[in-house]
Order: sequence, then C-alpha cells, then structure tokens
Amino acid sequence: MKPEEHQSCQSGMPKMFTQMSEQKPTPMTNRFGGEEVRVVDAMIDFIYPEVPFPSKRIFEALGEERIRALVVYHHDLLRKTKVGDLFPANDEAFKAAVHKSADFFVEALGGGATFTSVHGEPHLRSRHFKVSIDENARDIWLLMFKKALKEQHFPKAHLQEFWEWIEALSIRMINRRTTMEPICRYYWSEIKGEFEA
Amino acid sequence: MKPEEHQSCQSGMPKMFTQMSEQKPTPMTNRFGGEEVRVVDAMIDFIYPEVPFPSKRIFEALGEERIRALVVYHHDLLRKTKVGDLFPANDEAFKAAVHKSADFFVEALGGGATFTSVHGEPHLRSRHFKVSIDENARDIWLLMFKKALKEQHFPKAHLQEFWEWIEALSIRMINRRTTMEPICRYYWSEIKGEFEA
Repeated sequence: MKPEEHQSCQSGMPKMFTQMSEQKPTPMTNRFGGEEVRVVDAMIDFIYPEVPFPSKRIFEALGEERIRALVVYHHDLLRKTKVGDLFPANDEAFKAAVHKSADFFVEALGGGATFTSVHGEPHLRSRHFKVSIDENARDIWLLMFKKALKEQHFPKAHLQEFWEWIEALSIRMINRRTTMEPICRYYWSEIKGEFEA
Repeated sequence: MKPEEHQSCQSGMPKMFTQMSEQKPTPMTNRFGGEEVRVVDAMIDFIYPEVPFPSKRIFEALGEERIRALVVYHHDLLRKTKVGDLFPANDEAFKAAVHKSADFFVEALGGGATFTSVHGEPHLRSRHFKVSIDENARDIWLLMFKKALKEQHFPKAHLQEFWEWIEALSIRMINRRTTMEPICRYYWSEIKGEFEA
C-alpha cells in the first residue's frame, strides 16, 4: 500500500528533522497544562547510512566457494551467540537458511543471480521483519563477521571494501530499538588495526 | 552517552533524507558486482510527527477523578486485546501499572506533578523500550482509547485537542517495525464523525 493510496499514512512531509538522540530536554516549567496547546517538534529516530555495495573485485579475488565458506563460518559463530536463537533450531533448516544467505552474498558480490533466481528480490530489511533485530543483535552479527574475516584469512586488499559494505548494510536490518542512542558505527579506520597482526 | 563522547556513533550528519517507504527500487541491471563500488543512499525509516500537548482546558473540564477513570477504563479494554500481554499478568501489578499511567495523564493535562514527583522524568519512549511495541500494538492502544473516549462520554468540546495529542504521542512509543509502510495516522478529521452519533 503506497502512501498516496491511503490518506491516513503520512507522506509529503518536510524532510528536515532533528534526531531523537540530539533532542534537548524540555524544561519542567510550564511543560504541561499551559494556557494553550504546546507543540513538541517532529523527530526522526536515526539515519540508516548510505551502503557502499562492493565492486566485482571481491568476487574475482575469492570466487564462489570461498564466499560460501565464509558465510557458513560466520553462521557457525553466530549460532553460538544469543543471535543464534533467531535462526532455525533444526540442523537441516539452519543449513538451508545459511545456504540462502550465502546465495545472497555470492550474488551481491557479482557471482550471478544465485539468490534472485531462487528467492526473488533481496528486500533484506523486509525479509528480516519476522525476527526482532535490535542494536545489540546487529553488533553481534557484525563482530562475528569480523572474527570470520580474520579466521578465514579474507584477502587484505579487499577487506576495507567488504567491511564498509557489511557494516552499513547490517544497520538496515535493525527493526527493534532499545535505546535513544544513535546506532554505533564500526568504521574501517577504527578496526583495521585488528587485521594487521 | 552522547554522540560526541563516542566517535563510533553517528552524529553531525546532514539532515535531509528520503523515507524508506518512498525509496525507488534499484534496477536489476548492474545492481551487483559492477566495476566500482555502488553507493545506496542514506535513508530514514519514518518521521515521528510533532506532538501537540494539550492545554489546561481539558483538566479544568474533567478533573482528576474522571481522567483516572478514563485511563482505568482504557486499560481494562487493552487487557482483553493482544496488547494486554505487554502488561503485568498479576492483578495487583496491573493495577499499579494503570495507576502510574493515570499519574502521567493527570500531570500531562495540567493536574500537577502526580507522575514526576513519584517516578521522575516521563521519558515515555525510553520507559517503553523494555516491551516490544509494533505498529499494530500502537493501533490497538489508540483504537481502544477511542472506544474509551466514546464510552466514558469524554466532553465533545475537548475531544479534538485530546485526540490529536494521543494520536501523535502514541507513535513515539513504537520501537518495533514490521513493515516498510509509513505509520498510519488517524487524523481527527477522519474519525470525528464517530463521535457525532
């Protein structure tokens, strides 16, 4: 249902807003029950930052099998965390979910329509609505990916390009807020040192 | 923790963004694995609209007891819906939660510090983070309030002012998204006819 089809849904509003985390507290004086209605400004929660999708260089360097192995490794790590509960408990169903995720990574890196030919449009955010993903779940997902990249010896020349993609992409999956704080960023400049050992 | 205290948290970003629900689909051609990195724009999810807090006119018309009765009635309705599961199951704990909510309504309408003197700053959004509130839960909360307003014979002269407050305020409690659609609005102009019977 598009906004214009349902006039009760907001649309066509101005596009400049303060983020909630930057909101100033309202002074207690005259906050409630004044002589007239007191309007509190419109707000946005947080900004889903731009996502730099990688070039074909990563696929050319790794190939399909190493990409699939990386995704499997990442999910084996995830399964041992509390995020593991978001995946099917049944081994076969878990394996199928991981395979589907690997299909996406292969395609997103330029390996052909391995995902869309089977599952249709990615629509990653929509696909994840059925599970509750809060800021901490995203942190765990991302930090386990960092561990997987290290332990699977992802080629150093392509780490930055890959990391900057998944770091930003993972934010789009957040659908449950548990804090007023902005979403934490894990910028390449701050974590690259971990790969230099 | 403020953004400036933690450089990994995003801050100081530009404040103009497209809403997700207005995002155009990316053409399949050259979407993945191009020659160079392809940047997908930053986005916001939805806008928490401005909230018009009521004047003291409503409190002057109703008084504390009728406001408390309204909040109790609303919660008795809520308890029978699926939103009821978000409240304590124990009767005494439920009653205490309703009393706290009534403290807020009395204060917000201008009846003095009934809430803040006992519980501190309202911080309604933060207080609700511990329970998952999706768009549908907000719809139910609001529609049960509409029913309560009708059945408790809320004074017609003040209905619009009260409704426009709770309709917008309730959106601030949403902390779980389950759809890409914008948040539905229940504008006074669209529902006032229900109160004319």
